[in-house]
Amino acid sequence: MPIRVGIIGATGYTALEVARLLLAHPEAKVVAATSRAEVGKSISEIHPSLAGRWDVTIESLDAAKIAEKCDVVMSCLPHGASAETCKQLVEQGTRVIDFSADFRLSSRDLYEQWYGVVHPWPERIGNTVYGLPEFFADEIANADLVANPGCYPTSAILPLAPLVAAGLIETDDVIVDSKSGVSGAGRSAKVGTLYCEVNESIAAYGVGCHRHQPEMIDLVDRIGGTSLSLLFTPHLTPMDRGILSTIYVKPKKSTAAEVMACWEQQYAECPFVTPVAHLPATKHVSGTNHVQMTARDGGNRLILVSAIDNLAKGASGAAIQNMNVMFGLPQTAGL
Amino acid sequence: MPIRVGIIGATGYTALEVARLLLAHPEAKVVAATSRAEVGKSISEIHPSLAGRWDVTIESLDAAKIAEKCDVVMSCLPHGASAETCKQLVEQGTRVIDFSADFRLSSRDLYEQWYGVVHPWPERIGNTVYGLPEFFADEIANADLVANPGCYPTSAILPLAPLVAAGLIETDDVIVDSKSGVSGAGRSAKVGTLYCEVNESIAAYGVGCHRHQPEMIDLVDRIGGTSLSLLFTPHLTPMDRGILSTIYVKPKKSTAAEVMACWEQQYAECPFVTPVAHLPATKHVSGTNHVQMTARDGGNRLILVSAIDNLAKGASGAAIQNMNVMFGLPQTAGL
Amino acid sequence: MPIRVGIIGATGYTALEVARLLLAHPEAKVVAATSRAEVGKSISEIHPSLAGRWDVTIESLDAAKIAEKCDVVMSCLPHGASAETCKQLVEQGTRVIDFSADFRLSSRDLYEQWYGVVHPWPERIGNTVYGLPEFFADEIANADLVANPGCYPTSAILPLAPLVAAGLIETDDVIVDSKSGVSGAGRSAKVGTLYCEVNESIAAYGVGCHRHQPEMIDLVDRIGGTSLSLLFTPHLTPMDRGILSTIYVKPKKSTAAEVMACWEQQYAECPFVTPVAHLPATKHVSGTNHVQMTARDGGNRLILVSAIDNLAKGASGAAIQNMNVMFGLPQTAGL
Amino acid sequence: MPIRVGIIGATGYTALEVARLLLAHPEAKVVAATSRAEVGKSISEIHPSLAGRWDVTIESLDAAKIAEKCDVVMSCLPHGASAETCKQLVEQGTRVIDFSADFRLSSRDLYEQWYGVVHPWPERIGNTVYGLPEFFADEIANADLVANPGCYPTSAILPLAPLVAAGLIETDDVIVDSKSGVSGAGRSAKVGTLYCEVNESIAAYGVGCHRHQPEMIDLVDRIGGTSLSLLFTPHLTPMDRGILSTIYVKPKKSTAAEVMACWEQQYAECPFVTPVAHLPATKHVSGTNHVQMTARDGGNRLILVSAIDNLAKGASGAAIQNMNVMFGLPQTAGL
Repeated sequence: MPIRVGIIGATGYTALEVARLLLAHPEAKVVAATSRAEVGKSISEIHPSLAGRWDVTIESLDAAKIAEKCDVVMSCLPHGASAETCKQLVEQGTRVIDFSADFRLSSRDLYEQWYGVVHPWPERIGNTVYGLPEFFADEIANADLVANPGCYPTSAILPLAPLVAAGLIETDDVIVDSKSGVSGAGRSAKVGTLYCEVNESIAAYGVGCHRHQPEMIDLVDRIGGTSLSLLFTPHLTPMDRGILSTIYVKPKKSTAAEVMACWEQQYAECPFVTPVAHLPATKHVSGTNHVQMTARDGGNRLILVSAIDNLAKGASGAAIQNMNVMFGLPQTAGL
Repeated sequence: MPIRVGIIGATGYTALEVARLLLAHPEAKVVAATSRAEVGKSISEIHPSLAGRWDVTIESLDAAKIAEKCDVVMSCLPHGASAETCKQLVEQGTRVIDFSADFRLSSRDLYEQWYGVVHPWPERIGNTVYGLPEFFADEIANADLVANPGCYPTSAILPLAPLVAAGLIETDDVIVDSKSGVSGAGRSAKVGTLYCEVNESIAAYGVGCHRHQPEMIDLVDRIGGTSLSLLFTPHLTPMDRGILSTIYVKPKKSTAAEVMACWEQQYAECPFVTPVAHLPATKHVSGTNHVQMTARDGGNRLILVSAIDNLAKGASGAAIQNMNVMFGLPQTAGL
Repeated sequence: MPIRVGIIGATGYTALEVARLLLAHPEAKVVAATSRAEVGKSISEIHPSLAGRWDVTIESLDAAKIAEKCDVVMSCLPHGASAETCKQLVEQGTRVIDFSADFRLSSRDLYEQWYGVVHPWPERIGNTVYGLPEFFADEIANADLVANPGCYPTSAILPLAPLVAAGLIETDDVIVDSKSGVSGAGRSAKVGTLYCEVNESIAAYGVGCHRHQPEMIDLVDRIGGTSLSLLFTPHLTPMDRGILSTIYVKPKKSTAAEVMACWEQQYAECPFVTPVAHLPATKHVSGTNHVQMTARDGGNRLILVSAIDNLAKGASGAAIQNMNVMFGLPQTAGL
Repeated sequence: MPIRVGIIGATGYTALEVARLLLAHPEAKVVAATSRAEVGKSISEIHPSLAGRWDVTIESLDAAKIAEKCDVVMSCLPHGASAETCKQLVEQGTRVIDFSADFRLSSRDLYEQWYGVVHPWPERIGNTVYGLPEFFADEIANADLVANPGCYPTSAILPLAPLVAAGLIETDDVIVDSKSGVSGAGRSAKVGTLYCEVNESIAAYGVGCHRHQPEMIDLVDRIGGTSLSLLFTPHLTPMDRGILSTIYVKPKKSTAAEVMACWEQQYAECPFVTPVAHLPATKHVSGTNHVQMTARDGGNRLILVSAIDNLAKGASGAAIQNMNVMFGLPQTAGL
């Protein structure tokens, strides 16, 4: 019997990507989808790409009912709203993978400082596993609640954390310059993400104040044991999908070759992380759960470049990878 | 002293294009801009591409005040709303170029049937000049009010009308298959024109019911003297600007070469209409007021292809061309 | 034991798409890849998106060796060259799916007239099955050689053929206006498909002389029993993938609703063909083997709109669907 | 009588942009165009966007003949080839604006080290004016030969040089992360810049070894009086035009506000350089000769962001600005 999956907040791009990926999953299927705004509609009215492939009627969120139907729930709600829903679902006995930032950080204070809201379920912040199976597979396997990582953080933590842990780089002046596709901005109607605003254009945003900056620092600290002084600048890039992070670090007498060797060793058993000789492009990983990364020497700096698909390894692919771990399947099942 | 131009409804793409084009105009300058929603803001806050190039504070619409300041006003308001404003401005003695569809059609009935609203100034529908200087330059020269043509109609009327007038084509089964850039859909926040909805995708819309269909028929009739049976299908294409119209007509024993000759003669004195040997691409006319068009033989059909920039010759460029005619300048001034 | 697949001509986009799709196939795997120009290189050097996912060394084409290794071969060579290779492979006892046009048409004369070359294996033209399992599944199941359909023809034959067979439309004046993504133009270095030539632009090409026009006519005749007078105009659209075909037909007193009903019945058992109420966009089928199509009434015309992914159902997805049929798997395996 | 302009190497994108911009110039016109490969063709065959707007027959390069016809020549040839041609033209008495890198650097050694060729006219390297009128207008005014700046260097030198000169930033660890549109890669047929290779993708290239890195260092030194330790990483971005440079510098106790004030003062009389409060996007300057730039505080770093159009201020617009200075016109003429 396949794993029964529910999607909460089914109208956005990450929800669609969960559905798209699960259509090809051999051991799981989506059995319920909720959205406050679209109750009663068919999911293929909201996402016409599902027509003829999968359909279900969107229902309102009733935690007890969803818990009964589903072995695991993907919560695609925005932060704040998500924590509250996760609480109800976990209390009903369902396992939950939360796409929001509500359980990612290691302390309530850090969360409330950066997100500006009172945390709805403070007992679980700081002791919920961060859904990066490359580092936390054992905890994920037994978790009732998994904090699915942020898209930008995934692209930065995977290259940085092993280097910090291995003492290969200085920790005092790390610069993460990231370029993301537009789907990261979500599917709500805003002038700023209209086609004619962002097409044929690239721009920085959230300079020095993006919420993924503390998440990167926090997780590299948790994994690598040291807090970085890290500056993060995201850019909106005219493409649907993809994140490219160009990361400038100071080597501790280490070389790009040593960085590559460190990654090779660290990720030898990780099916989705591939150190590559070429300079990765986001297209190389588009539509997949894969991460490509490389390192280059550059005078007194090392340049690290990583590429992921923000909707896949940066969100929905990672969620399915987490689900696989939670249910004892190979990480690659359906991916 | 330069022509003083006002822009009503200054937040959209056609308004920005008017401003962009007038920045390079030797004899005209924008002196006022209005927008109900943005009063008091600087225009460069709304359109950051104007920063350092031109600035003005957005004001609310006071017809008397605008009339005093401006020799001509470009109304970029939506249909219905525009007619009312045009009325006030014309009554105050300003000349107006109306970007909406309010004065384009030849009868109030046709307008009310297709636009579903009561016309706010019915006295002027059917006797307002259609702003296509290629055919109506004399009337435009003396007009107090000009109905600036629709973008799709421009791309269809220019190739079709002379052929109808010359009796070169059958009138009973004309098919206009048009492909437009996304700017034609305007700048209001709608899910349907978000980047990730329309990027990497093409789709038909408004099949058989788009309001530019009667405009095409009406104008070809006015110019060519015969009413066409014409079917129009627009498509949303992943690009900022441009309209390509592929038009299928039945020849009356005529050939593509005769079509080209007819156009050459018709448009010999028209600086913006160029029959070309190659198959035109929208990129060839992007950012310009030019029209490229060609004809091909295809068995029992002739295929006509025209390319314009929907924001330029399809809207704001045409408006400036009209303004030039109204003020006795060469049609090409600033274009 | 999985089906062992070989790819001939492995450097192009269709070859990459075959590899991409087979990575997710439960019963088949790619075991060999050839390319004259790249012998000895790793496939992931040519297609960096395969890094960390699948790799193989590109070999030169030795029919006997390939036949020994492979249960089925996908020939991604250009027309002319492909027929010759297919001959060698079939004679060695391998089953072949040919992506070229070499075996699609029903007569050698038609082929030589449109392709301008002497056919290298004339015995097999006119009696090779056309790889559209929606109509020819039984023959495909037993074939040693399958002519994989052209991308544009797939988008036109699927909507048209059943209507012709059912006598719902006139056959004398069918217009197929198609819009394709750029991947259809292949991966060889040409100025015409450079990013800056085709981005932000749409243009018609091959007007009235594209080789897919006789293929459409030929196949609709074979399936529907009547030869159409059909005019085909392809357009190059700024997107990677996708074909949208807008088809103008004259109804025989039939309505769009009757067209939809005809399709519903015809394709009831076809997992990839979905009549839809909405106007399909190419994005709705992107990356999938699915076809969405709809019909609209439009005065004295019916408008049919179909959407496919040119690389998937238009090429590599169809090839895998054919392979599934040839090896007794469900058509949907791995798709 | 207008300035008579010749274009050498007329088939590329910068040549087209020169032509496009000069069509709107009140005091200059293109009178000759050369290209070895296309002699005898009409320029509008090579650049169909010029059809109906301007035409000339492409001739072969005869320095004496060009010198007679032209008051100034734009050399759009690649490095190495360009220097040789510039020599002939200058010796014939024509003034030349060179788009290549041949005369930009301050020493022959630096040139030969980075460009790997023997310089064809070493007497003029190190004593040819760098065509940045914001700093070198007086020398440009009298020059017979102007080294038109590189696109990336323009985007970095304009924000950095005044800060170095004013002592506002540390010079030991400057990082320039730039994102460019694809037109910067030129118009020759290469797989790497095919639409389907670069669309929907972003990637770094030339990491740590791009030739514009020494140009940035060299010019900031010339203007600001100090040699920077600067690391430059360019990225290929899926758009036609535009460069966004995100620059990470260490403040010398200075703030973003002081940076803005320094720029305001430095560029008060420069019509094309605009410090802005918003984060600039490349779209804001697309098609124009303008530069927008801003500064942000970010912990122990300052972040500078500049946006230009690589084809305009990054190449052809700058050339026309230089021409204006050379011929005593306002810098803004025709721009």
